[in-house]
Amino acid sequence: MKSPGNAVSDVTSKAAAKRPAEPSVNQPRGSIRTGGRTERVRLLVANAVLDALRNGNYFFDIKDIADLTGVNKSTIYRRWPTRVALISEAMKEHNSQIQIVDTGKWRSDLLCLGLNLRSFFSNPTELAFNATLAMSNDPDRSAMADQNWAPVQERLEQVVERAKARGEIPQDTPGRLIMSMLTSPILSQILLGKSLPTDEMIARLVDLLVKATAHPD
Amino acid sequence: MKSPGNAVSDVTSKAAAKRPAEPSVNQPRGSIRTGGRTERVRLLVANAVLDALRNGNYFFDIKDIADLTGVNKSTIYRRWPTRVALISEAMKEHNSQIQIVDTGKWRSDLLCLGLNLRSFFSNPTELAFNATLAMSNDPDRSAMADQNWAPVQERLEQVVERAKARGEIPQDTPGRLIMSMLTSPILSQILLGKSLPTDEMIARLVDLLVKATAHPD
Repeated sequence: MKSPGNAVSDVTSKAAAKRPAEPSVNQPRGSIRTGGRTERVRLLVANAVLDALRNGNYFFDIKDIADLTGVNKSTIYRRWPTRVALISEAMKEHNSQIQIVDTGKWRSDLLCLGLNLRSFFSNPTELAFNATLAMSNDPDRSAMADQNWAPVQERLEQVVERAKARGEIPQDTPGRLIMSMLTSPILSQILLGKSLPTDEMIARLVDLLVKATAHPD
Repeated sequence: MKSPGNAVSDVTSKAAAKRPAEPSVNQPRGSIRTGGRTERVRLLVANAVLDALRNGNYFFDIKDIADLTGVNKSTIYRRWPTRVALISEAMKEHNSQIQIVDTGKWRSDLLCLGLNLRSFFSNPTELAFNATLAMSNDPDRSAMADQNWAPVQERLEQVVERAKARGEIPQDTPGRLIMSMLTSPILSQILLGKSLPTDEMIARLVDLLVKATAHPD
């Protein structure tokens, strides 16, 4: 699985360097305009929570987040009444890095998504989350991971639904399975094979998926 | 990814209960007949090393293995001069659980393999190895993992080669990628989704792979 000079660590350090805080395009709860104070607070808090989670600290104290961000504790409590709400906000921010573009074509939608997933899965925070999840036997934690992944899963499956709506693929194409056949080989190579899938590998994967989902003649 | 009553832990505990020591069909180095003393020693030692590795102890002492198994230290040294040789023997034993049958047909070869991989990846030792590998940033350890997986990879790709030889799939079918598209969705669901792929999921996966590798009309 190794290809020299193509190690994940090279890439993840670059990803880490440019990670911080482009403002998210997701709708911040209660915000008036993107980039405003409410959005700034949301990003500060979300990133502080992501830091805690990346360090395996699921039981962080809301006071710690207040201290780290300089955001008033009561402001945090008002907006995110529970630790679960905070984690959910943080994961939403984290998962918003998966950009799903609508190119209007099944093949190019899959290709863009594959390339984007390669960046996402090699992000150091995502690597840490997946490693922790792999280690975990805690049903609460895996339930939480499932719950945080569900909205992403839904966005991924919409790519399949769009292709169905355009008549490009059969109506009975199993969306979740096809998306797993795209994401899992990329994720496994990064998480376990410790190398980055090449552009060519991703293109071949997409070709095979396009063929697998072609209409019967 | 969750499906109730289908949790991995249910199955892995059963797998653990029946794990010990059916004699391996792999050729034991220097052994005369399967089931003889040499083979018994090999199995004892391999399982003791697997225990150490499962507990994350990569730096076990050969003396510990001797104490645990009752096998003489000099016997161990003579047959496995280094810790790497011991680990390699243990991993060969572990990986021999992946049975690759030759049904003479591409589809049924894939189906048998998919079902077998579901058992293998939900084995507690394999779960522990993959979790450790996911956590690891140690290049030595990942190189070792690669090296121990390489013979399995080769056996998996032979399934593709056989289908090519029978003319069932095109000569340019990418063996490694196709095998990753079979193994990774199964592995990810078990390791990260914490649930077992159903028979139906595996059958649909195989159908998609058969379609993806069909001859162009």
